[in-house]
Amino acid sequence: MTTDTELQTIELGDIGGEIRILDQTLLPFQVEHRTLASWEEAAEAIKVMRVRGAPLIGATAACGMALAIRSDPSDAAMFKAADGLRKTRPTAVNLQWAVERCLSILACTKPEHRLEVAWKEAALIIAEDKAANRAIGEYGVPLIKALAEPLGGEPVRILTHCNAGWLATTHLGTATAPIYLAHAQGIPVHVLVDETRPRSQGAALTAWELERAGVPCDVIADNAGGLLMQRGEVHMVITGADRVAANGDVCNKIGTYLKALAARESGVPFCVSVPTSTIDPAMADGFGIPIEDRGPDEVLHATGLDPEGTVRTIRTAAEGVSALNPAFDITPAGMVTTLITERGLIKPQHAGHIVG
Amino acid sequence: MTTDTELQTIELGDIGGEIRILDQTLLPFQVEHRTLASWEEAAEAIKVMRVRGAPLIGATAACGMALAIRSDPSDAAMFKAADGLRKTRPTAVNLQWAVERCLSILACTKPEHRLEVAWKEAALIIAEDKAANRAIGEYGVPLIKALAEPLGGEPVRILTHCNAGWLATTHLGTATAPIYLAHAQGIPVHVLVDETRPRSQGAALTAWELERAGVPCDVIADNAGGLLMQRGEVHMVITGADRVAANGDVCNKIGTYLKALAARESGVPFCVSVPTSTIDPAMADGFGIPIEDRGPDEVLHATGLDPEGTVRTIRTAAEGVSALNPAFDITPAGMVTTLITERGLIKPQHAGHIVG
Repeated sequence: MTTDTELQTIELGDIGGEIRILDQTLLPFQVEHRTLASWEEAAEAIKVMRVRGAPLIGATAACGMALAIRSDPSDAAMFKAADGLRKTRPTAVNLQWAVERCLSILACTKPEHRLEVAWKEAALIIAEDKAANRAIGEYGVPLIKALAEPLGGEPVRILTHCNAGWLATTHLGTATAPIYLAHAQGIPVHVLVDETRPRSQGAALTAWELERAGVPCDVIADNAGGLLMQRGEVHMVITGADRVAANGDVCNKIGTYLKALAARESGVPFCVSVPTSTIDPAMADGFGIPIEDRGPDEVLHATGLDPEGTVRTIRTAAEGVSALNPAFDITPAGMVTTLITERGLIKPQHAGHIVG
Repeated sequence: MTTDTELQTIELGDIGGEIRILDQTLLPFQVEHRTLASWEEAAEAIKVMRVRGAPLIGATAACGMALAIRSDPSDAAMFKAADGLRKTRPTAVNLQWAVERCLSILACTKPEHRLEVAWKEAALIIAEDKAANRAIGEYGVPLIKALAEPLGGEPVRILTHCNAGWLATTHLGTATAPIYLAHAQGIPVHVLVDETRPRSQGAALTAWELERAGVPCDVIADNAGGLLMQRGEVHMVITGADRVAANGDVCNKIGTYLKALAARESGVPFCVSVPTSTIDPAMADGFGIPIEDRGPDEVLHATGLDPEGTVRTIRTAAEGVSALNPAFDITPAGMVTTLITERGLIKPQHAGHIVG
């Protein structure tokens, strides 16, 4: 389903060679790649969300460090790039994690050897992410299978929020990994995809991914999940996360918390798929995580295709109206049934602290 | 604030004269009126949501009955129109209520006197709705005032969902009536307006109303209310309703339930403003209320203004993707702090049944 090399979210060439991303701001209407020529271009790609999703942000930051070294392997240039990359987005911890990881190995490497080390570290981060996603998928499949058994051939109906698919990672996705593997194994699934305003990553990215992979799905308004759970039409929720605190609180795309409340109320399992690089042992609980404010424009506008096939951005609110746009929220650990990680399943409800 | 006669949602002329509506499908980008020439045009206006909001649907249905009588006062024509109007939308009980009310008085009136009776009944329903909204406002203001006192001049932050403003009624609105009256009395308020996908009535209608009236407000994504309540940035929720069951369960625009869950979790009062015509004593609980399914197109598209000022509808999801679109959900009575009606405040949490 993601074996098409034309559609890798990020590609790292040979040492010192080309680094290319899939520009997600144009999806699903245009599939275009873009070469990152400098760390500044990597930072811009993260900032304007040409790449997005915690794991892919981490991988892109590592590539940004490699690009910085390529143009200037000095300490000064390296620390400047690390700073610039770190500041692009505040919430996803994978960004900080990847920059720190690169810095810690580069700092004890002589400048003349840094290019090779930086390139190899970026490649390793990408390879590890691919392996982590597959392991997440394998740990997650039995959860779906257990729900499928009493349904006698009816699909397991899984609600997901935002995009934690292969577009958010380097392969298979986090939330989608168990879904893709279950589908490949013939377990019937049907995915309910939250539109995920204001940027509509669910409608634009997740539904596009699932449709391409032949996984049955429907887009729903972000408002609809509660009713569908009340009616028993959702068997499971799986989302990704941008950061998980040491106590298991989950910081994810705004609106996740509302679905967790509804899932708890209706007894629907609420699962969060994350590589362990998304867990932040230094953050005691979720309410300390900085929540990015992305400004009013995203809320007041929508982007899509007009009937003639032109991509347009329109203003959906009345002229002169303002907006608030916090981009993430916190789902307390007690509402999270299972964290699906590449190292196995964690039950935050039953653990005082998941790490630390 | 709604004294401008140019902007009445519905206007009924002298007996047998013109009936005119404000076409809400074009708002906030175009302000256009439309004459309803027949009951079929009234039914169409309800169906395609040129008029919407439970009280205004009721008023328009009464006008539809008057138009039916104007063209043919016979029993056969009258019952046919009643049937046609009843079928336009399933959820708002005011529609059924208004049609039954007109029928019951017309059925015992001779055909030659029906035109006058039908016209006067429609006028009475409109006049009663105006009075009910004002009374709802007056009963609601003390709730806002009580929250304002400890804030020492900081605004009371009120979250609302969809549009239960004057556009949903004949005057002042239901959810907005206490807000408009509080604002007029100098109580500082700041309204957080849920965008309300898929039709965006919050961004397009409620924010437009509030802006025109000079009431401070911000549009937020439907996903954002939970975080804002977690942060203590919402002091109160007020919504309208399309139908309230005898036990106090509230059926309102999809997504209302998710906000009620978050309000309960954060200890935020959750109030629902309704005229008593929205209470359905025949419906024992909310889960028996028919939920309208409005089809996939609204979810997959958005409408707004492009930078050149042209109103456009764009597809926001990938080609080939499908959608589900239930239009209402049920908030159990136990989550509703207060029903604000024209007859006073009702506490569904503490009553076995609010009616019956």
